[in-house]
Amino acid sequence: MNILYDERIDGKLNHVDQAELLASLRGALPDLEILHSEEDRKPYECDGLSAYRTMPLLVALPEKLDQVAEILRICRRLGVPVVARGAGTGLSGGALPLEQGLLLVMARFNRIIEINPEGRFARVQPGVRNLAISQAAEPFGLYYAPDPSSQIACSIGGNVAENAGGVHCLKYGLTVHNLLKVDILTIDGERITLGSDALDAPGFDLLALFTGSEGLLGIVTEVTVKLLPKPQVARVLMASFDDVEKAGKAVADIISAGIIPGGLEMMDKLAIQAAEDFIHAGYPVDAEAILLCELDGVENDVREDIERVRNVLAIAGANDVQLARDEAERVKFWAGRKNAFPAVGRMSPDYYCMDGTIPRKQLPVVLKGTAELAEQYGLRVANVFHAGDGNMHPLILFDANQPGEFERAEALGGEILELCVAVGGTITGEHGVGREKINQMCVQFNSDELTYFHAIKAAFDPHGLLNPGKNVPTLHRCAEFGAMHVHHGNLPFPELERF
Amino acid sequence: MNILYDERIDGKLNHVDQAELLASLRGALPDLEILHSEEDRKPYECDGLSAYRTMPLLVALPEKLDQVAEILRICRRLGVPVVARGAGTGLSGGALPLEQGLLLVMARFNRIIEINPEGRFARVQPGVRNLAISQAAEPFGLYYAPDPSSQIACSIGGNVAENAGGVHCLKYGLTVHNLLKVDILTIDGERITLGSDALDAPGFDLLALFTGSEGLLGIVTEVTVKLLPKPQVARVLMASFDDVEKAGKAVADIISAGIIPGGLEMMDKLAIQAAEDFIHAGYPVDAEAILLCELDGVENDVREDIERVRNVLAIAGANDVQLARDEAERVKFWAGRKNAFPAVGRMSPDYYCMDGTIPRKQLPVVLKGTAELAEQYGLRVANVFHAGDGNMHPLILFDANQPGEFERAEALGGEILELCVAVGGTITGEHGVGREKINQMCVQFNSDELTYFHAIKAAFDPHGLLNPGKNVPTLHRCAEFGAMHVHHGNLPFPELERF
Repeated sequence: MNILYDERIDGKLNHVDQAELLASLRGALPDLEILHSEEDRKPYECDGLSAYRTMPLLVALPEKLDQVAEILRICRRLGVPVVARGAGTGLSGGALPLEQGLLLVMARFNRIIEINPEGRFARVQPGVRNLAISQAAEPFGLYYAPDPSSQIACSIGGNVAENAGGVHCLKYGLTVHNLLKVDILTIDGERITLGSDALDAPGFDLLALFTGSEGLLGIVTEVTVKLLPKPQVARVLMASFDDVEKAGKAVADIISAGIIPGGLEMMDKLAIQAAEDFIHAGYPVDAEAILLCELDGVENDVREDIERVRNVLAIAGANDVQLARDEAERVKFWAGRKNAFPAVGRMSPDYYCMDGTIPRKQLPVVLKGTAELAEQYGLRVANVFHAGDGNMHPLILFDANQPGEFERAEALGGEILELCVAVGGTITGEHGVGREKINQMCVQFNSDELTYFHAIKAAFDPHGLLNPGKNVPTLHRCAEFGAMHVHHGNLPFPELERF
Repeated sequence: MNILYDERIDGKLNHVDQAELLASLRGALPDLEILHSEEDRKPYECDGLSAYRTMPLLVALPEKLDQVAEILRICRRLGVPVVARGAGTGLSGGALPLEQGLLLVMARFNRIIEINPEGRFARVQPGVRNLAISQAAEPFGLYYAPDPSSQIACSIGGNVAENAGGVHCLKYGLTVHNLLKVDILTIDGERITLGSDALDAPGFDLLALFTGSEGLLGIVTEVTVKLLPKPQVARVLMASFDDVEKAGKAVADIISAGIIPGGLEMMDKLAIQAAEDFIHAGYPVDAEAILLCELDGVENDVREDIERVRNVLAIAGANDVQLARDEAERVKFWAGRKNAFPAVGRMSPDYYCMDGTIPRKQLPVVLKGTAELAEQYGLRVANVFHAGDGNMHPLILFDANQPGEFERAEALGGEILELCVAVGGTITGEHGVGREKINQMCVQFNSDELTYFHAIKAAFDPHGLLNPGKNVPTLHRCAEFGAMHVHHGNLPFPELERF
């Protein structure tokens, strides 16, 4: 499947010849590694959203910041769009290349510059892996909190670009809450520092504005993250339910009881069975849903919270509640959850992962609505998600080799996201908009709101060369999407009454 | 003292006649209360930064959002600048009126719309007082964490505009970390929602961009804040030191030990004596510095942390450490700190409060540098501050009736802020830039960086009518400031070596 950046609806870009761009880059930067053959470019045609693939015009693999700045200046001069890429683990196609664009791979900037235990921060290059930061901080009893499932592989520059989340974000916040400072290069190749080493920076909050901007405003060249002290102890409870809506309700009850778990995750029957088959985590395969609730902190505190959570779960109608006996069992419980995506992948040739976020109290409604939509489309959906945050990850199972099935999966995914918007939620929790949800942005925002996004984009990148076609749709695209989308009628859509 | 918005350096605004504006407003909004006599406008000539005073052209006191939208449309049409004001407790002159501008007082929007214990949020109008939110949430065991010293009086709209902090922000974050959603009116009178009820909002993070934008981007009309469960127990330790730098070092040691206190505050001798004279909090008046360290959470956790902090303090060389025996003593310890500003006010006809923020490890250096600068200027400085955050509040004592003394205090304040910038800090932690620190923004940022601020401002307010002359200086102002400021030579300034 090859979905192009659509010039017709996303705007007009220069047509630049591969040979011309290559000659310009080689002339100015003889030491820069550039991939230009089809074979060499092939591995870069997609990121973690592999349903979308495009061959980039060229792939540049710089090792020095001067090279990056010069690449940007050359692309600026020639009018060539630039798509930045870290480890390529993103799930929304934020690093999907453009046929007419340069792919700027930042993976070689992988140096940890400083771990500062006194100031509780780490200063790292953008290609450093998320988990590597915690590993480097470990001797000081510190760690970096946001932990995407891909944390072994994903890089911090990409985490900043997508404002990545993870299991622990319920308690410790998203990437944006764990940053002190980000250095960027602008499209003009100028270096700017956003944020500061101190608590707050005056003026407008450009650091927060930049975080999650998906490569549309600049290229991340250095990141200073906050480090947290490692909790003394972490324990996990697993509760099983005979009804998925009861489990959804229990989530709201735990939070309402004033408990802030380190993680609070939910899986439905299909996800449980897939994970159990794959990992043998000890999950109850007959349950309709399980909750995993991790409590972390100091020993006594955790012990008390466990009892409080047990009470809430009992009242909410859990059939069975198990406390992981030891660290080994705790790790096993989590291994099932953390491998749920590949586990589901074993059940189906392809799957498509959604990332809608909703107010917690809407969990039962949206679970029911998702099941109804799935039935309507004749596709299976497994639910695995950060329940405490209301961040859903419905996995739509399909077979891309069956004609029309990908399109059906994509349409179902779109409807699920629109349902999330309709109940007061958003189309993304932690995976970003990227290429994947660009059309749903037209549902989330009206044209007045999009106009502010465009003005901000223009302030940083007046010629629209940084990652065009991602994150913020053009008004033209939204007009086209609206026209394609007549079955919805006026938003908020009348179908809502169904749920 | 009457410091005007300086058209010569801040740009040109229309000259609008008071009578003409009054007639336009009355014609369109017959029910709107408008103050126009000198006597009625007088109470509004300053906010909490009373050293700066300007009489507004008119004061409008709307009660309905339709009125606010229409006021904005009229001002937009006539080219009249608009300065929004909440409770007027701001300390940086963010709500300082303009002679040629309308003062838009939002204080009457003081309704708590919803307390939602399940979703753990409160939805309130902008004129609701900070403390009133916690009081309304109390029956549910919840509270709103950011607690400026002015929390009895200050309103949440102003907290959003200034990204307010407080004693508890070390552990619980600034205003920006405790918001879900803000509704605003643009200069065109259009309503826009920033953020969402869910975890995250896609696209650029306009909510964070808006928070702390000091009325330059729009008018806050509704705020949805996060509520937190009240900690089971809170205890406070008071440590006294015979040396202010030892106390500064102890702060860094506590944080390095992996403890996150609910609050960690420092006062120096002058502040201790002023507070003790005023409040009789039981402070040791002979100490050179005290630290107040609050630990909150569940009982056992707090007990353990107290012992750990005691150890750190002993090693850091504290002379004496007292644990508040009961809740009454805890409240008394804090009362001294929370009333430190008025207490210092009793020692001197006037004082001027700075708000620089620095990396924690620079505390000893900056305390020493501040003392040296104070001696050089022949003025007394009391230090009271959020030590855990590195957020300093030097209070410069002066007598405005002595010719030249205010100017000397202002110049000393400027030098202290520039020292903060030189050690890697910023010119504001929680009070905002406002009118007060507008010149120091030229030290903090270069013209490239300011250009991005201006582009963002123009995206929201192309004619520069929203609170001009605050927060973000014009390049022209910075050029003038640089010219006035020749004694500094090139930045980073050579005087730094002194410290």
